[in-house]
Amino acid sequence: MNVFVIGIGLIGGSLAKDIREKYNEAVLFGVDNNEAHINEAIEKGIVDKGASFEELKNADIVIVSVPVDVSLTLIPKVLDIISENCLVFDVGSTKEQVCEVIKEHPKRRNFLATHPIAGTEFSGPSAALNNLYRGKTNIICEVEKTAFKLQEKALEIFSNLGMRIRYMDPVSHDKHIAYVSHLSHISSFMLGKTVIDKEKNERDIFDMAGSGFASTVRLAKSSPAMWTPIFEQNKDNVIETLTEYIQNLEHFKTLLEENNFSAIYTEMENTNHIKQILNGIQEVKLH
Amino acid sequence: MNVFVIGIGLIGGSLAKDIREKYNEAVLFGVDNNEAHINEAIEKGIVDKGASFEELKNADIVIVSVPVDVSLTLIPKVLDIISENCLVFDVGSTKEQVCEVIKEHPKRRNFLATHPIAGTEFSGPSAALNNLYRGKTNIICEVEKTAFKLQEKALEIFSNLGMRIRYMDPVSHDKHIAYVSHLSHISSFMLGKTVIDKEKNERDIFDMAGSGFASTVRLAKSSPAMWTPIFEQNKDNVIETLTEYIQNLEHFKTLLEENNFSAIYTEMENTNHIKQILNGIQEVKLH
Repeated sequence: MNVFVIGIGLIGGSLAKDIREKYNEAVLFGVDNNEAHINEAIEKGIVDKGASFEELKNADIVIVSVPVDVSLTLIPKVLDIISENCLVFDVGSTKEQVCEVIKEHPKRRNFLATHPIAGTEFSGPSAALNNLYRGKTNIICEVEKTAFKLQEKALEIFSNLGMRIRYMDPVSHDKHIAYVSHLSHISSFMLGKTVIDKEKNERDIFDMAGSGFASTVRLAKSSPAMWTPIFEQNKDNVIETLTEYIQNLEHFKTLLEENNFSAIYTEMENTNHIKQILNGIQEVKLH
Repeated sequence: MNVFVIGIGLIGGSLAKDIREKYNEAVLFGVDNNEAHINEAIEKGIVDKGASFEELKNADIVIVSVPVDVSLTLIPKVLDIISENCLVFDVGSTKEQVCEVIKEHPKRRNFLATHPIAGTEFSGPSAALNNLYRGKTNIICEVEKTAFKLQEKALEIFSNLGMRIRYMDPVSHDKHIAYVSHLSHISSFMLGKTVIDKEKNERDIFDMAGSGFASTVRLAKSSPAMWTPIFEQNKDNVIETLTEYIQNLEHFKTLLEENNFSAIYTEMENTNHIKQILNGIQEVKLH
């Protein structure tokens, strides 16, 4: 089984590691513009060897894990070159445009649009982790447009890696993911910026930061190269979530200014309900 | 050594646990309006017995770990009742008003104003943890106003519990802590609210939430009873940080609307600098 991973970073590298562990027969090929990444991935045993784009014609499986803007031009070219029974899937954080761009491609049925909800704030092959996908959700879009046998092949891999599957149309995916992922990244980046801007004049401030601060700004370590095109592709949904978030913050500020602390108490109490939701996420991780 | 802990929750309970471990001779008394908390703390071995307010006259050490509005009326009464050589310290997240309210008290020199930067999003005696304070910063305000021997006693305890000390005036404390703690709580609560409000109509949304979302909204589980009076006491500083945060979010939204993605890239890249800062926090935890 020849598995080609285009983009050997956190996401692609972690998939390669798990596939190697679950499939003895897998030969893993890394395709990456960054020569240093290929070499690092070989050294770390993430892939067996580097490969050129032309060699994709020998692939049984191609995983496309590159920034979502690159995907739009890359995936049609991958579909052009692959053989008849090859499965191609992407792992990007936006799904509407990628589904749109390949919808008329003669090899549309070789492609599966997926979004594994997994990752960390780090990037590059050194960030790749074993078992990153265990217990995580993988969202699959337009499953009916993929050849049945290739759906089966993909689901077997996802199942072996421990993922649970949710099916969703790409428009709903992009709308919902703006709330539960893209907005968190913006809130984190802007929180980091607010505090760093202050720190220019106040050197001692970070001595006072604890684990709560670390938790809320963790995502501000994320890669701008990966996230800029996500925000670009999901611009309308992200603006909607950001508008609602800012309104809620403005409302909280008004309550403070009006000394309406009983309303502030109620706001927080109502939001404490998030406990159940987060426990849900936690449970999924544990099982 | 008779140690009285007023308020046997996450913070007071964790201090009691560590003090018991480090001081064999310590007898731990719990004072709490909530009878169930006292019983739970005794059952869990956090304190030896419950005590009435009047028994504070027998205390060598009194730890005041109650909501910061309660502290303002409680601490003067505690100082009224304690004996001459008793040390009283608080652990609240705001320091200006508590220092102000006791500044003319005849027993001002028995009091030390402290803020251990430690905690979790949970509350009550069941949330108390061993070694919560190991490697954490403890901010001490107006140290010079505390009797030298009682400073020494307090520093010995903090040192035994593994804390590092930073001295700061209460006005600076409240200003800085608004950035690195209070703002994080508001951003988290309002992020949770934004997504929960959406979820009313979109039941599937939380199936898509991953660890990034969990991390940014973790603090939205925090206790409204504890946090409402913190926001009230630190209102002016919190409004300042919130104003700057909202401005940064508005700016980010404008860049999105103007399709200025190169500026968005730069914003994120500049904020990636937070890595070094967070690594700093991490290191402190590990040593």
